[in-house]
Amino acid sequence: MYHGGMNRRLRSPLRVALLPFALVALAAASPPKKSLTPSEVIARAPPSAWVAVPDEDLLLIDFDTGQRVAVALAPDFAPVHVANIRTLARAGWFGGITINRVQDNYVTQWGDLTEKKPLPAGIVARPPAEYERPLKGLAFHPIGYRDAYAARTGHAGGWPVASDGRSAWLAHCYGMVGVGRNLAPDTGTGAELYAVIGHAPRHLDRNITTVGRVLGGMEALSALPRGTEALGFYKEGFPRPAIVSARLAADMPAADRPRYEVMRSDSIDFANWVLARAHRKDDFFVRPAGAVDICNAMPPVRALGPSR
Amino acid sequence: MYHGGMNRRLRSPLRVALLPFALVALAAASPPKKSLTPSEVIARAPPSAWVAVPDEDLLLIDFDTGQRVAVALAPDFAPVHVANIRTLARAGWFGGITINRVQDNYVTQWGDLTEKKPLPAGIVARPPAEYERPLKGLAFHPIGYRDAYAARTGHAGGWPVASDGRSAWLAHCYGMVGVGRNLAPDTGTGAELYAVIGHAPRHLDRNITTVGRVLGGMEALSALPRGTEALGFYKEGFPRPAIVSARLAADMPAADRPRYEVMRSDSIDFANWVLARAHRKDDFFVRPAGAVDICNAMPPVRALGPSR
Repeated sequence: MYHGGMNRRLRSPLRVALLPFALVALAAASPPKKSLTPSEVIARAPPSAWVAVPDEDLLLIDFDTGQRVAVALAPDFAPVHVANIRTLARAGWFGGITINRVQDNYVTQWGDLTEKKPLPAGIVARPPAEYERPLKGLAFHPIGYRDAYAARTGHAGGWPVASDGRSAWLAHCYGMVGVGRNLAPDTGTGAELYAVIGHAPRHLDRNITTVGRVLGGMEALSALPRGTEALGFYKEGFPRPAIVSARLAADMPAADRPRYEVMRSDSIDFANWVLARAHRKDDFFVRPAGAVDICNAMPPVRALGPSR
Repeated sequence: MYHGGMNRRLRSPLRVALLPFALVALAAASPPKKSLTPSEVIARAPPSAWVAVPDEDLLLIDFDTGQRVAVALAPDFAPVHVANIRTLARAGWFGGITINRVQDNYVTQWGDLTEKKPLPAGIVARPPAEYERPLKGLAFHPIGYRDAYAARTGHAGGWPVASDGRSAWLAHCYGMVGVGRNLAPDTGTGAELYAVIGHAPRHLDRNITTVGRVLGGMEALSALPRGTEALGFYKEGFPRPAIVSARLAADMPAADRPRYEVMRSDSIDFANWVLARAHRKDDFFVRPAGAVDICNAMPPVRALGPSR
């Protein structure tokens, strides 16, 4: 009973039919590669399998704790909000902004506690709700496994994406960054942001603008004391981590710029990596799942460039 | 484009057909209740909708940080391992045990760093791999939504459960507690445990024995500094939180016993709550997901009894 055979249901013809062509082709053409572990696939991926996050899309947030959080911005999904965030960063607006909310298994959120700090010139005060975009125009690679929330999920440009076949949107996975807003859908500017620190709250998909992903320094957001007020807000007087500066890599001296690379969603190495995540061959696993959900398949990231 | 209509694909007849009978009956019989938010459903649930965790199944772990973690044990899923954990607790064995591993978006793990502390009499040294059990005998209530990993998911006795139709197993959701082991499947005794602190690592399902769920004090495990060594292990010399005592509520003076109640999986209130999670009516939501995955539907818990 405890050591039954592989779960054949997950390996039915229907499941195979859902696999994207590239993965099926790979499985057929390169059986030896199937025995690599996910880490081995990453270690062996050639330079061409990686793409650098553009300096204009890399936001470095330095906290007074000495910790740095690196966020990749997603202009292909939220162009107006990302433009706002760039404007805020370039105006030095984020300096002094504090983390005000840490709700366990949900989000860490930072913003202007006074709600009175004037926004700089050039900010679109009521940007459109950039909750989704056309699927067309994205190089979308379906993951090929079921999802509780969306008709299909997959990857595009290094992002976790969900789609109904016409629209596409960023999936609210661990480490994704979104725009805090009030009840009206177009009330977020990008001045108040949050990062997911728990199980993917996918019910937020298409209810909020998602603007990026934490690529480095996640601990500075996930390991904080949880707030004791409703929704995880910190009590008045609680010592809050404060932002010293938030800058785009493009605005830093070239020698100081961190460099992050994300594995290309359209590379054979990435397809191999997803397969290896679904069909674990590590010695530890006695029963590979035969599937992987989109938020357990966040594209691999590596940090290069100067450390600090 | 950004404000399209409801996602009809998620509301197709097939989806409704998958809903458990109780939910369908409810939706038909009590339409007004559908407008309640999840919090409102919890607030209105009568006492009969809640069931107390038995004192024999409630493990209270006190750390030298002053924090307490409350874990509900799952003897219906892992009887031998749970018996071991009770024996370890009653022998005072957990005193001095430290947290040695905190891997971001994965697990916090505690155990005997020396690996030499003798186990007390009565411990089954090589318990069977209690990775799954027969579905038969469980009051299983399907959640009615898709899952990336298992043919079906749902709830039984207040637990998140996955099943292939014959076997059933606890799903590795946020806050679930499992038994650390070496490569051989039957090498975990229950002396080394971990809790999930990130997106549900469902690939561990049926690869490891799951013994319980953190019901209280999760922050003491999730908000810790992340380990800097491989797999999130703390570096030698890093100050590790240590367990002062781990006791069963049954072994505490009656007046000191914490009391936790979990919403009954077989109550109409729970069915209502799952529906409310899937079809959010809070003013914030502009597009309810129409579904919820098993790890975003962890049965509600409430703490009663003496605080400390």
